[in-house]
Amino acid sequence: MNSSLNSLLINRIDLDFLLNDVLQSGLLLERDRYADHSSETFTATIDTAQKLAQELFAPHNRKADENEPHFDGVTVKTLPEIKAAVVAFAQAGFLAATHDYGLDGMQLPVTISQSCLALFRAANVSTSAYCFLTAANANLIRSFGTDEQKRRYLPALLQGRWFGTMALTEPQAGSSVSDLRCTATPQADGRYLIKGQKIFISGGDHDLGENIIHLVLARLPDAPLGSKGLSLFIVPKFRVNADGLAGEPNDVALAGLIHKMGYRGTTSAMLNFGEQDACMGELIGEPGMGLNCMFHMMNEARIGVGMGASMLAYTAYLHALDYAKNREQGRLIGQNDPASPPVAIIEHADVRRMLLTQKSYVEGALHLCLYAARLVDDERTQPDEDARREAAQVLALLIPIVKSWPARYGLAANDLAIQVYGGYGYTREYPVEQFYRDNRLNQLHEGTHGIQSLDLLNRKVGMKEGLPLRQLHARVLATIDRAHQVAGLKSHADQLQTAWQELLRTTEVLLAAASEDLRKASANSAAYLDLFGHHVLAWLWLEQAVAAHALLEHQPHMADFYQGKLAACTWFYHTELATTQPQHLLLRDIERHALNVKAEWL
Amino acid sequence: MNSSLNSLLINRIDLDFLLNDVLQSGLLLERDRYADHSSETFTATIDTAQKLAQELFAPHNRKADENEPHFDGVTVKTLPEIKAAVVAFAQAGFLAATHDYGLDGMQLPVTISQSCLALFRAANVSTSAYCFLTAANANLIRSFGTDEQKRRYLPALLQGRWFGTMALTEPQAGSSVSDLRCTATPQADGRYLIKGQKIFISGGDHDLGENIIHLVLARLPDAPLGSKGLSLFIVPKFRVNADGLAGEPNDVALAGLIHKMGYRGTTSAMLNFGEQDACMGELIGEPGMGLNCMFHMMNEARIGVGMGASMLAYTAYLHALDYAKNREQGRLIGQNDPASPPVAIIEHADVRRMLLTQKSYVEGALHLCLYAARLVDDERTQPDEDARREAAQVLALLIPIVKSWPARYGLAANDLAIQVYGGYGYTREYPVEQFYRDNRLNQLHEGTHGIQSLDLLNRKVGMKEGLPLRQLHARVLATIDRAHQVAGLKSHADQLQTAWQELLRTTEVLLAAASEDLRKASANSAAYLDLFGHHVLAWLWLEQAVAAHALLEHQPHMADFYQGKLAACTWFYHTELATTQPQHLLLRDIERHALNVKAEWL
Repeated sequence: MNSSLNSLLINRIDLDFLLNDVLQSGLLLERDRYADHSSETFTATIDTAQKLAQELFAPHNRKADENEPHFDGVTVKTLPEIKAAVVAFAQAGFLAATHDYGLDGMQLPVTISQSCLALFRAANVSTSAYCFLTAANANLIRSFGTDEQKRRYLPALLQGRWFGTMALTEPQAGSSVSDLRCTATPQADGRYLIKGQKIFISGGDHDLGENIIHLVLARLPDAPLGSKGLSLFIVPKFRVNADGLAGEPNDVALAGLIHKMGYRGTTSAMLNFGEQDACMGELIGEPGMGLNCMFHMMNEARIGVGMGASMLAYTAYLHALDYAKNREQGRLIGQNDPASPPVAIIEHADVRRMLLTQKSYVEGALHLCLYAARLVDDERTQPDEDARREAAQVLALLIPIVKSWPARYGLAANDLAIQVYGGYGYTREYPVEQFYRDNRLNQLHEGTHGIQSLDLLNRKVGMKEGLPLRQLHARVLATIDRAHQVAGLKSHADQLQTAWQELLRTTEVLLAAASEDLRKASANSAAYLDLFGHHVLAWLWLEQAVAAHALLEHQPHMADFYQGKLAACTWFYHTELATTQPQHLLLRDIERHALNVKAEWL
Repeated sequence: MNSSLNSLLINRIDLDFLLNDVLQSGLLLERDRYADHSSETFTATIDTAQKLAQELFAPHNRKADENEPHFDGVTVKTLPEIKAAVVAFAQAGFLAATHDYGLDGMQLPVTISQSCLALFRAANVSTSAYCFLTAANANLIRSFGTDEQKRRYLPALLQGRWFGTMALTEPQAGSSVSDLRCTATPQADGRYLIKGQKIFISGGDHDLGENIIHLVLARLPDAPLGSKGLSLFIVPKFRVNADGLAGEPNDVALAGLIHKMGYRGTTSAMLNFGEQDACMGELIGEPGMGLNCMFHMMNEARIGVGMGASMLAYTAYLHALDYAKNREQGRLIGQNDPASPPVAIIEHADVRRMLLTQKSYVEGALHLCLYAARLVDDERTQPDEDARREAAQVLALLIPIVKSWPARYGLAANDLAIQVYGGYGYTREYPVEQFYRDNRLNQLHEGTHGIQSLDLLNRKVGMKEGLPLRQLHARVLATIDRAHQVAGLKSHADQLQTAWQELLRTTEVLLAAASEDLRKASANSAAYLDLFGHHVLAWLWLEQAVAAHALLEHQPHMADFYQGKLAACTWFYHTELATTQPQHLLLRDIERHALNVKAEWL
């Protein structure tokens, strides 16, 4: 593993610190499900992921950006490197990493699986998207499909021969899922004729495999309006023959490719289902439960987006750090002798500031996503039922933060990475501009920033009379207690305690206002989401600081790493958490919001 | 002009309001230099610019982004639309808009000229860059060239037959101008052999005209180290024959094209001068004064960058506003009936919030840049010498803000414009993602954000014992006085007064610290730049609010526009100015900064 320590995908020392010292993933080994694993198998799996990511994913990241998938008149052509990478990913078992041994899975904890996937995201977010979409598709078929459906679709999907998509969005409906119009008409043979248009279908068409299995939300003839009228259908690009192979085309037509600012290696397609009234689908799950099926994996999908955002920012930070250490330019302020040698730009205070800010964002964001993954593991495998329930509740509360905070502040870190490179950072001769473009997507898909903020404020914080929020707060207080016992962290602990009291008070004010006028109270929900996120991140940074402080004494050879953790924590408290106070006042002053302004004034 | 009111380049009502009601550009007509002009000629010139911008610049903005200039083995090919646009720009006289009638100029005030250029920037920032570079080049030759040089170069440049560049940066030196190495060796005929490599040369090679005139910083044989050893040279791509036409190649070789994230229509080149020891240049200006010559036009160049950033954000805002008014999606919070019709997304509070934030940024940024242009006019044409001097001093102080604030907050506005469009905003099928990519350059060129912040803190605020800062503050206080007389603006006036006291106090603390340890005191200079900028923008918004309030009574048919101004001002005070307080505390606590962190900890 030594050579991999220098990877620009991730700092493995940091990943190990987060997994072992902060999240104590070793405790997972005590659970029955993971009894066959050991910390060695965890490490070996992450090593395998890193090797694959570095050797098969990273090398064509720029090339895929420059050579978008294109329609050649017959099919959508992709780079051969993409196919090689996704097949290797499938063959290494990562498509089913967390699944039962009996289902050809590795039975890995989600925490470890997400650590592996993080490396692919850092290496090549658009190629890895094909893998993740297929994995999600297969997961859904496994959870809701009949035995026959599982038999028909799963093996080819998990072997990387067939690929999967999720086809929700329609052009007219956008984020408003309840307005979907696609229809499904029952046929005598029990199948359904599918008709309608879907947009933004990632992986919607390509030449990577023999078939593409679309999971399509559509309405049965008598279905009610709104989201309760949606059912889910398996709609293959090519009909599946009796022998299990892909056969005739299934009337799924490519209406157009969408050209994105970033994430260019992943096709995004507009698809017409049933233009010729010959598109056949199979119902999966119960009628009217389409959205529930689709959202069954929502938490993991949102952790995935957060992780993607975190890793695009993380690898950009490592690139900027490397550049700043090696690029010599200018002299220290006050040193004006032109005969003196230039210094590495990391010596310039402003560059140091940008790197520290990035570090505090990206290492915090990674921790957040791994923490969420750990909650998924607890939700599933904690022996104690109450503990499982609590994990599920805290996870539900945190999910909008996990989806949104890394997307927003990760992008801010990507922006700073460009700035560290100076003019070079703006060029496609260097990698950081692509990370920035790629990451801009993450505030939009899988629920926009605004939609996440409404989920947090109007659903999550008030859920079960605020129980999950109290459970989260109890975890925060536990960290504060531990930090209070460390001389160097006392003031941070005090600051966090006060900050959380403010957050709870702001939350109370907003919930009280919501009971009177929901629209008014949630008018600044996006600011609330960002604010809540900063309070969560500050807590996680204190967790890291407590762990780093304890290890600093015992591992002096690692002092630089632990000092860096303590410095980043302090930086976050001084420059980020300390600047949140005015936002509380703003949010509590319910009158001051955008609703007072008329559309005509803009 | 009526049809142009609906332009998505700029809101002409807003431009007229800023020029006439806020900046009182009509007063410029009282000055001798502008005696031949009238408010009608001002308007007609802006109309002409708008027409040209809409008809010849905007239509190929996306096409130029998708078809970057490329080297075909002989020359760098550009789209024919670019040439048509820049020639029309030249022929309409905009290359010399502010110059004397005797020099084929229009003798326009800079305020009006910048208003015209703003439209080209909004329409197509990368095509207009060729125009601005040539204008700047010609300006410099006019200011420092011999009569012979003016005769030889100016006519072809101003007719759009030849084009100009500025060749400062070298690969190893980056922003550190004092480390430039390019050399100039005197020849017997009085000319110089130029040798060296330059990078990031915008417009450095292309096929738009018959010749390209590079202005190159280089060192004479005995020149001292550092920036004082730099002289400036005119170095044409093709040597100029006795007949004044472009002749033999001048040993200026294209070493490579640089591929940028945005601004793709403008070539950025790496050039090798004198690979064959046959690159001839002419000295322009005095030996050792190269940087002074280059920086002679610096204020206008930096206003130009600020204006470009403002306009990329402004046009993106208008696009997002238009989209938000016309795109129907979802229902108001609390309205869950799926049978009810969807609403225009501008009705969603979060969309309203994003639009208001954009409005407060872009209309404020435009005002800032026009205010700076007005100061240039005052510096040049105020009859009173003291008033001219004050204008020059206030301008010098504001320049780093003018360069930086629109670049940073304009980009933030561009980011919100994408978010208003949702997933569509991320696609190249819609224009806002390009505006965002294009605008990202503006924090980098013409002095990075960090460099501007050092200019502000270490040079400008302490300049002449703080006189320019006191002069600016006096202007702020004058606005506060006027606002205090308006009932609806009293609280804003109070807020601004307090805020500026805080800013002055923070400035004092930093200047006192700088006298002890300059490096330490300036470690958070970038935060100071942003903070100062917000205080300037808050002042300008109060200026706008005072004007809008006065007009609201007299022009009820324009009530929506003026209410919008008042709302945007209030928004800026509540959500932006009100959140600056923690930054003051952070900046005054000199100990808390990035310098305490060691490079090895990162």
